[in-house]
Formats: sequence, C-alpha cells, structure tokens
Amino acid sequence: MINKRIEHQMNQLNKASRLQKSMLYSFHAGGKRLRPILLLASYEAYQDNVEKAMVVATALEMIHTYSLIHDDLPAMDDDDLRRGQPTNHKVFDEATAILAGDALLTYSFECISNDPLLSYEEKIKLIQWLSKASGPKGMVAGQMLDLQAEKKVVTLKELEDIHILKTGQLIQFAIVAGAFLGDAPDKDLTYLKEYSYYLGLIFQIQDDILDITGDEDKMGKPTGSDEDNKKSTYPQILGLEGALKQKNEYVHKAKSALSKTKASESYLHALTEYLTERDH
Amino acid sequence: MINKRIEHQMNQLNKASRLQKSMLYSFHAGGKRLRPILLLASYEAYQDNVEKAMVVATALEMIHTYSLIHDDLPAMDDDDLRRGQPTNHKVFDEATAILAGDALLTYSFECISNDPLLSYEEKIKLIQWLSKASGPKGMVAGQMLDLQAEKKVVTLKELEDIHILKTGQLIQFAIVAGAFLGDAPDKDLTYLKEYSYYLGLIFQIQDDILDITGDEDKMGKPTGSDEDNKKSTYPQILGLEGALKQKNEYVHKAKSALSKTKASESYLHALTEYLTERDH
Repeated sequence: MINKRIEHQMNQLNKASRLQKSMLYSFHAGGKRLRPILLLASYEAYQDNVEKAMVVATALEMIHTYSLIHDDLPAMDDDDLRRGQPTNHKVFDEATAILAGDALLTYSFECISNDPLLSYEEKIKLIQWLSKASGPKGMVAGQMLDLQAEKKVVTLKELEDIHILKTGQLIQFAIVAGAFLGDAPDKDLTYLKEYSYYLGLIFQIQDDILDITGDEDKMGKPTGSDEDNKKSTYPQILGLEGALKQKNEYVHKAKSALSKTKASESYLHALTEYLTERDH
Repeated sequence: MINKRIEHQMNQLNKASRLQKSMLYSFHAGGKRLRPILLLASYEAYQDNVEKAMVVATALEMIHTYSLIHDDLPAMDDDDLRRGQPTNHKVFDEATAILAGDALLTYSFECISNDPLLSYEEKIKLIQWLSKASGPKGMVAGQMLDLQAEKKVVTLKELEDIHILKTGQLIQFAIVAGAFLGDAPDKDLTYLKEYSYYLGLIFQIQDDILDITGDEDKMGKPTGSDEDNKKSTYPQILGLEGALKQKNEYVHKAKSALSKTKASESYLHALTEYLTERDH
C-alpha cells in the first residue's frame, strides 16, 4: 500500500526528469517502510479507514529517504551500498543526490499541505511536529552530533541523546501523528509518546547488536562496520550482555506505556516484538 | 528589520551547536535580502502593520540561503567565495554545509507553521505555495536543469525555463505571498503574478549583463565567469545589445502589469527600477 502510494505521489512530478528518477530510485532500492507502518499501525488502533493517514505516512517516508540519501554522501558517511544496492550518488552523481534529497524534503511538506482529507488545523499540527522532528531541533541536529562524535569516546548519555534526535524523533512522530489523526484521547497521546521514546532506543540497540551478531546476507550489508569505524555503540559502551540487558529494560518500559492505551492490543504490540527480535 | 528577525529565529536553536553556527554564518556573510524585501513591499502596498508578514519573509530568506549553501558545494558549482566571503563549506566543511542547508529548509516550514499571527488557512496556503516554488516543481528542478545545461548550447526558451524555475518561482512567491497576506483582491494577485514573472527574468538578464559589464569591487566576485564556464546567458544567445533590448521589453511588460494593481505607486515600483539598473 505504501509503495503504491509513494509511486503515485512521485508520478505527479515530471517523469522524464533526472530529478524524479533519482528521487524514485531510492524508494525502489528497498527499505522496511518502518516509519509509515508505525504511523498506520498507530492510526488503526483508533480508526478504521486508513486512507486519512496515507499521505502523511508517505510524506514521512520521503523525509526518511532524503536523510539516507544525504547521509550516504561522500562528505558524510561515504557509503557505496545501502540495502545491498548502490547508493543514490553512485548511480546518479553527488549533485543529483543532494538535489534529490532537497526535493524529497520539500515535497514531503507540499504533499501534506495539499492533502484533501485533512483540515487546515490537522495539516498545520502535523507540519509543526514533522518539521521539528526532522529539522535543526531533531534529526538534522542528531546527524550533526553523530558526525562530531565519530572516532570519539562518548558516554551512554551522549550516545542516547544522538539516537533520540537522529532516529527517535521521527519514530515518535510516526506514532503520535498516527494516533492524533485517529482522534486518540490526550491521555493516550502522552503514553504513546513515552512508548515511542523507548521504541526508538530499542530500534537503535538492536541495530548495534545486529552489527555484531547479524547475518550479512539477511542484512544486505557487511557486519562489524561499527567496530571498524570505531563508532560508539551500546555494546561498545555496555558490552554485548549489557546492551541486551538495556534493551530488555526498555522493552519492559515501552510495553508498560503501551499497555495504558487503547493501542495495547493493536498491531503496535506485535511490531514492538518484531523490532526487538528482528534479524535484519 | 529582516536581519534582526533572522537572528531572533536562529537564536531559538541550540546556540552552542556547530549546526546553528553554520546556519547563521551564511546570513552574516551578507546578501541583498531581495526576496523578503519584495515580500514586505508587496504586503505594504495593501496593509500597514508589516509584522504579519515578517515570519514568512524570513522563512523565504532561509530557503534562498539554503539553496546558495548547497549550490556552492564542490559537487555543484564548487564556489569558494560568495559575496566576497568564503562559502559555508570552506569555513565549516562539506558535511556541515549540507546539514546546515537541510536544517534551514526544514526550519523555514517550522517557522511558518508556528507563526502566531497567521490563521491555519493562511499558513497552509503559504506552505503550499512555498513548497511548490522551492521543491521538485520549482527551484530544485531549476537547479537540476541548470547543472544539466552546463557546457551545452541551449535555446532562449530552455534558458528562460531554467530561470523561471531556479529564481523566478521564489521571486513570484515573495510578491504573491506579500499581497495575499495584505488581503489584496484576486484581480491584483493575478496581475502581480504576471508582474513578478517578468521581474524574475529582468533580475536574471541583469545578472548576466553584470557578469560582462559589472565592476568586480561592487559585485564582490570576479566578472567574466559565465564566459569562462561556457555558461548559457542572455548576452551569449542574444548579444549584449539584444539582451538589453529583451530586458527593456520585460521592464515594459512588468510595469504594465503592476500599473493595473493597487501596488502601482508602491515601493514595488521603485524596486523594479532598482533591479533594472542595479550595478551589483
């Protein structure tokens, strides 16, 4: 559903253009669609007709995708492969990849602002939250701190601050935006904020653990790269055992917060399990 | 006024951060503030209290500034100097410059969405127009076409298509958004759209002419670079005389459209003269 909708949104751009091809390439190169799935799961815990949340879900995936395209650039993480496929700037070129990222970011806000199913107020709230989560108070700040932390010893607190900004805020947006569009009560929004805070950290710990214990074929990328790059990770700070223990503690806290909402028996519950145990 | 307001908006970000410093640097490195001035001038043709248009005016300058930071990158135009000052990636580094651009773009929408003086409907209309003008149907598409046109012979029509996307759309946004916030009648908005279409082209022709006839000290950058880079320009396609003639034709059309609006005697009229005759 999400892939079809992304294709639909992208086809409203000039199809012959190199820019559109480059934007579309990074969607076709795979991805778990985790953020839109979380958004739709959160929405479905409160409302049936998922159509109302579809545009925001795809807009969110556009922002995530732009961030990957820019993160992979030679000046940033300098990655040639992503999900087992050549990265955007390897297939096109650096200039095109920079512009494709810029375009996806801008188009994301354009799509939300033009969504015919949302009220002006709903659109503005979503844009307020999404811009904050992804901009200089959120994801971009996290990426900056992450680059500055490279090859440096960081504390657990510093590591978590980076993750909360870099990945946590968009995950939180997904879950809160979905529930908001589903007319969840304020009390549920508060608990879902707490739930998604821990879910973001669980996601990151599992990422770090998989870089040590994961299967390269399943992951679509080489493991052990964190150690090679001297990256600060949960296992590096806490040891593998400690990281697993920390993850379990967060899983407990996440489930506890979720259990206080109407979403307690929803697909979000199963997704929490999946994210905790995932092998890629 | 605009500089003060930009400073104010930037100070709401983490001041100690490298990201904020990099974002702020490119504002301090000068600039004509043409787009916010056009927006405020257009607003003031209809309303007195300019406060209502200030946040949108600064948000627009943020988008313009992000586009310059990204355009200057080594993978794009590879410029070491802008307005006589080292470019962002020369002072910081490429990764920081990419992120500062991403952050300014995102923050621009955040600032509009949080403006307490605008209604939900006004904010959404502005975000619809601004995202369209600056995204894959506007400025970013223009920059992509501009890069593709490098060292290629283009027709006048192709050249103007690039300019309309790359610079024209944001200039049009400035003028239409200002008048819209000033509650201009629909008839005026239509004529102002036409006016700003020609104003954008005038601005570009003058840019091309100055690259041949301009004074390097006044410009803060070397002249003759278009010819060195084999860039397609109005003088290159039409000759210097032909370019001047084309400019005068557009000035006539712009003034004619402006004269049909309540803004005919406004500061926009003087700005048209200024942009036509400017020497830097």
